[in-house]
Parts: sequence; structure tokens; C-alpha cells
Amino acid sequence: MSEDFRHWMRQTQAGCETSLARFLPDENTVPQQLHAAMRYATLDGGKRVRPLLVYAAGQLFDAPADLLSRAAAAVEMIHAYSLVHDDMPCMDDDALRRGKPTVHVKYDEATALLVGDALQAQTFLVLSEGVDGDATSRLAMMRLLATAAGSVGMCGGQAIDLASVGVALNREQLEQMHRLKTGALLRASVLLGAMSGKALSPQENQALDQYAAAIGLAFQVVDDVLDATADSATLGKTAGKDAADNKPTFVSLMGLEASRALATQLCHDAHAALAEFGEKAWLLHELADLIVQRQA
Amino acid sequence: MSEDFRHWMRQTQAGCETSLARFLPDENTVPQQLHAAMRYATLDGGKRVRPLLVYAAGQLFDAPADLLSRAAAAVEMIHAYSLVHDDMPCMDDDALRRGKPTVHVKYDEATALLVGDALQAQTFLVLSEGVDGDATSRLAMMRLLATAAGSVGMCGGQAIDLASVGVALNREQLEQMHRLKTGALLRASVLLGAMSGKALSPQENQALDQYAAAIGLAFQVVDDVLDATADSATLGKTAGKDAADNKPTFVSLMGLEASRALATQLCHDAHAALAEFGEKAWLLHELADLIVQRQA
Repeated sequence: MSEDFRHWMRQTQAGCETSLARFLPDENTVPQQLHAAMRYATLDGGKRVRPLLVYAAGQLFDAPADLLSRAAAAVEMIHAYSLVHDDMPCMDDDALRRGKPTVHVKYDEATALLVGDALQAQTFLVLSEGVDGDATSRLAMMRLLATAAGSVGMCGGQAIDLASVGVALNREQLEQMHRLKTGALLRASVLLGAMSGKALSPQENQALDQYAAAIGLAFQVVDDVLDATADSATLGKTAGKDAADNKPTFVSLMGLEASRALATQLCHDAHAALAEFGEKAWLLHELADLIVQRQA
Repeated sequence: MSEDFRHWMRQTQAGCETSLARFLPDENTVPQQLHAAMRYATLDGGKRVRPLLVYAAGQLFDAPADLLSRAAAAVEMIHAYSLVHDDMPCMDDDALRRGKPTVHVKYDEATALLVGDALQAQTFLVLSEGVDGDATSRLAMMRLLATAAGSVGMCGGQAIDLASVGVALNREQLEQMHRLKTGALLRASVLLGAMSGKALSPQENQALDQYAAAIGLAFQVVDDVLDATADSATLGKTAGKDAADNKPTFVSLMGLEASRALATQLCHDAHAALAEFGEKAWLLHELADLIVQRQA
């Protein structure tokens, strides 16, 4: 990754933090504890991969700043709510997230449940407000995000994940699960960023879709590799959890080396999909590298 | 209540059931169990008070049928998801709802969590699709619903409710809790129905707001009276739960007779707020009666 990219990434992450802080209710607003917990769950943590995808795709189509910051905050809020619920005892029962106690450990289970619920509502509120863009394209963005977050997207992937504990999935089934569980929101991030700038042609939509599919799958393959090889301190969450939970992973299915090779191949695929856009897509290009080369 | 009203109510409830069945993903769509559980949580049950409010307010402004059916399904889906999460062991831990086992009892806790999450996403999907109305007013409707469902609306009310177990609230505090917990979504139902027909003048908005505030509070007062006096079979949920959980209620605060008198007074207030609209508001007028006179 280039120095220019690293600079852009730091700037964008900082900007995203500022937007999130602005788009979340204040801690002094009643009910204070719920708002404090929503901010705890969302702010000051994470690599902000989804917002980075929003901003990188938005830059490609000169998207206006306010709408872009809303789209970026929206996908990150959906992500944050899903982590809060996913960490609860009835799901993955995890105590550590982004290096901090999970919400139900820091507060309690009922608060964690409400934090997730309220963050999802806040997401659609943030995306329905603001000054940029015409209302018709804004509605299209909300349709896309609601679909990606719901039962044929992220929630659906989590349901399949739950049902597949201890089950011998083949690679196709494993890919389908991840296409929903993490892929749908990553794809939405890319498309929402682009749609913040303009209505996409079928050709642009398809190219971005191919890019998103490749990095979405790569993201999960790398996640599985890191879960099997890194320690909890580096990850900021409990390592080795998937194996301990007897969950199918790319590493358990293909082995470590083949998984790494697959991630590299997917990165090439992502780069190839961007050919359509030429040099201007350099941020999305380097983001694919980041996703495959990340260490946590 | 008049025979005409009863006829309208039965027709509207049946129509709402048909819309909900159409706006929820099919049980044969992957992941099948999640979709079956979403339908279990939403269909075939409940008095559909919120959709009735949507339709009654919509009729006042000649709202188009498709948008009205979407608004009605949306508020009912938000209500259904909140019940699923509210019944979970970390919240109210209830086994019976609408005369059937609650979702976490019928399925499991993780499924109940995902059902609620996916229903909320589906709500915003349903409201962002369709043919009627201009996009700008549709966005305004989504803003209203997201606010009513979120941390300064329904979720916020639940957080205050959680924090007030065993606490001696005064009447003002109790009213504020209910204004958020149940009042916000009832208010949104009235306004969304009306907004489906036209952009409201400040005067119309204020009149509907006063009506909604009165019936919202009346709804809760009656709920407390029924919880203290009716049996579980009649209610379709566990009776006497609030007292057993040491939760503050209007009955515990004011006594049974004063609570009944308050409900009657609020019904008068609701009727008075409708004066603005004349005879045409007969459905909303009789709905206020229904809310105060219901036995379950």
C-alpha cells in the first residue's frame, strides 16, 4: 500500500469517527445509559473497513460530502449493532471486542439487546436525513441497505451460521453463508458509496458488484486465517473461537496455505473488476490490498 | 362502537393480515427457518391496533392503497419485533404471547434475536418500496418511523422501563416512560397513515398529535387495568406480570378506579382533538372507544 493511501485511510478513519459521534444521540439525552452504551458500542474502535469502502467508492463518482458521511456512518452502525447482538450469550457469547469488554459484559444483556435495536433504527434515521442527493436515489439507497441488513442479507447469513455449527459444509455452502453474513454489507458499502455520487449504469453496477464479491469473500477467508493463526491481543477479540465452537471455516475446509492462496487470487479478481474505471479507482484498488494483507 | 365500525375493523384486520403475509419473505426462501419464525412472530395474532390507526388516519386524507398497506405493515412489523425481543429471557422472560408460545420458546433465543433484527430491517425495506407517493414524503415517513422506533422512542422507553423496576416513579415519570415505550409508535401510526395521503399542515399535525397522545396514554392505562384484573387466557399473555415484576403501573400508582376514570377522560380528550376534522374522522373517533373499552 502506498503512503498516499495510508494518509487517506487515516484521514478518512478520523473523519468517520467524527461523523459517527455526530450522528449518534448525545450521552446527555434521555435515556442516558442507553445512549452511552450505543456510543460505547460504536465509537473508538474497529478498522472502519465498511466506511472506507463507502468513501473510496464515493470518491470514484465525486459524491457529495454529507451524503457520503451518512452512508458511511449507516453501514458502520449496522455493523456495530450486529457485533453487539452477535456477542450476546445466546449467540457467540463473547466477552472481548475491539479490545474492550463487549456491551453485555460492560452493561447487561437487556441493554445490549436494546443498543443493537436502537442502532439499527438510528441507521435508517441517519440515512433518511440530510441535504444532499435527490429523494428517489436516497430511497434506493435505503432499499439496498435494508435488504443487505435483513433476512436475505446479514441476518440471514447469521441464521445459516447458527444452523451450521458442527455441520460439514462444502465450499459452496460456506461461501453462500459468508456471502450473506459479511458479504452483503460489504457489497452494500461499495454500492452505497457509489450511489451517493450518481445513479449507476448497469455496467458500473456490475463491475462494482464483482469487486465487492471478491473482497467480501477475501475478507472472510483472511478472517478465518487470522482466527487460526493470530492471538487475541492482536485481534482485539477472542482468537481460535471458530475452531473451539466447531464452526466450519475456510481453514478447516481447505487448509491454511490454500486459504492464503485463495485470498491472493480474490485480491487479483477485485483488481481486475476495477479495470473499467482506470486509475481513478486507486483507493478501491488499495483497499483490496488492505483487506487481504491486514494482520487483525 | 357502531356496526359500521365493527365491519370496517374486521375488513381492515383481514386486509392487514394479507398485506403482512405479502410483505414478509416466503417460508420457502433461504434461510427457511428464519423466515418461518418471522412469519410466526407477525402473522395470525394481535388486535392490529397500530395498522387500524394507520388505515383510519389514511382514510381521513384519501391515502392511496399501496402506500397505506405498507405503512400499516411497517408499524405492525416494528411492534412484532419489539414483542419478540421484549419476551426474551434477558428482558421480560415471557413464555406466552397472543395465546401462543413466544418465539424464543417455540424456536430458540438466538433465532428470536435474529427474527427481531430481521423484522426491523424488513420494516424499512417495505416502506422504501412501492409505487405510491412522492419520494420526498416517503423519506419523511421513514424519518418519522425510525425516530419513533429508536432510542428517543420505543427502544428508549424500554430502557427507561428496565431502569425503573422497583423504583417509585411519580405519575409524570410513568407517563414519560409510556410516551416513549408505546406512545411513540402509536403516534407514528396515526401520522404515517395521514402522511400517506398528504403532507400535513401544522394545524392538522397538531390535532392528530393531540389525538395520538391521548389514545397512546389511554392504551397504556387500560393495559395496566387489564393486567391487574383479567386472566392470562383472556389476555393471550401472562396476566399480573407487572405486579409480580414489581413494575410501576397506573394501577399501583393511582388505584383501579382512578385509572379507569383517567382512561375515560383521555378518550374524551382524543375525541375533542378530532373536532378539527368533523364527521369524516369517525373511524379515529371510534378507534379511541375501542382502545378504552377493549377487554384484552
